[in-house]
Amino acid sequence: MTAQDLTMTSLTEDFRTSLRLCAASISLVTACDETGGWHGMAVTSSGSLSMEPPSMMVAINHTASIHPVILRTGRFALNLMGEDRLDLLERFSRSDMRDQRFVPGEWTDAVGGVPALKDALSTHICSVVERHDFGTHTVFFGAVEDVILPRTDQATAPILWLNGARASVATPLTD
Amino acid sequence: MTAQDLTMTSLTEDFRTSLRLCAASISLVTACDETGGWHGMAVTSSGSLSMEPPSMMVAINHTASIHPVILRTGRFALNLMGEDRLDLLERFSRSDMRDQRFVPGEWTDAVGGVPALKDALSTHICSVVERHDFGTHTVFFGAVEDVILPRTDQATAPILWLNGARASVATPLTD
Repeated sequence: MTAQDLTMTSLTEDFRTSLRLCAASISLVTACDETGGWHGMAVTSSGSLSMEPPSMMVAINHTASIHPVILRTGRFALNLMGEDRLDLLERFSRSDMRDQRFVPGEWTDAVGGVPALKDALSTHICSVVERHDFGTHTVFFGAVEDVILPRTDQATAPILWLNGARASVATPLTD
Repeated sequence: MTAQDLTMTSLTEDFRTSLRLCAASISLVTACDETGGWHGMAVTSSGSLSMEPPSMMVAINHTASIHPVILRTGRFALNLMGEDRLDLLERFSRSDMRDQRFVPGEWTDAVGGVPALKDALSTHICSVVERHDFGTHTVFFGAVEDVILPRTDQATAPILWLNGARASVATPLTD
């Protein structure tokens, strides 16, 4: 290895370490292909963008199977999972559980056939209005077509991802 | 109001409500202007983008005072704050505490004079390589020039933002 290779390796390793220190909520990004087939994966790379217009963004690796579906159909949903749906995290993360992801009765057809989780904390149905490719990822910019708020109590916390594992928000909230 | 106005108002309100349900880590985005002046603000809109090349992104409102500084200088830092630096969150959120933000001794000059928090959980020094304007915000895509990991124990949790207030990660982590 050259000195430059070593520097790059060190930067990449430190970058990897640093990403473990940041906590983020986990959402299921979902899409519907042209044959009505549903696709989904767990992400921490989604977030709100602007209030005017209401818009969300999500960064997705080019190699993810949902990537070409969103690219072709121009629509996705972001389903924010509550602490009581940890089972979904496992089903959407393990490739050997791929056929157990969309359990009948748990999901509903939203705009354009995109699957919306019936007991999500929130679901944003988004129409891709712009996108930006960068490195291994595409950032999809979605105009929010619909906001579904299935729960009225808003007492359930989202599932967190921290240090390579799932974590919880402290309850009651401390000050 | 027309029926369409009412629909938009409802969507905007539901969107606002939905954003309160998502938990995110809080970082201080910082920049250094041409006269050496330091700028900073607290954000939840930053995240990692791709591993190859190591890159981060941050969405910043056009009206934020740090926006033109990053635009002109092409460099920013993301300082992930630990639970033990809640004081910084207040200083960087309240405009009447603007002159108390960069307390001498707490910050160091990183690449290009960008301020790095000495006891951040992590600091990413980023060079803006691309940007994307959308609605009220610009998304800055930053190549990571340096990763600073000031703490070796990695036992401190990041500060969370949830439901319009700061929140904590449960410790010890529950399963």
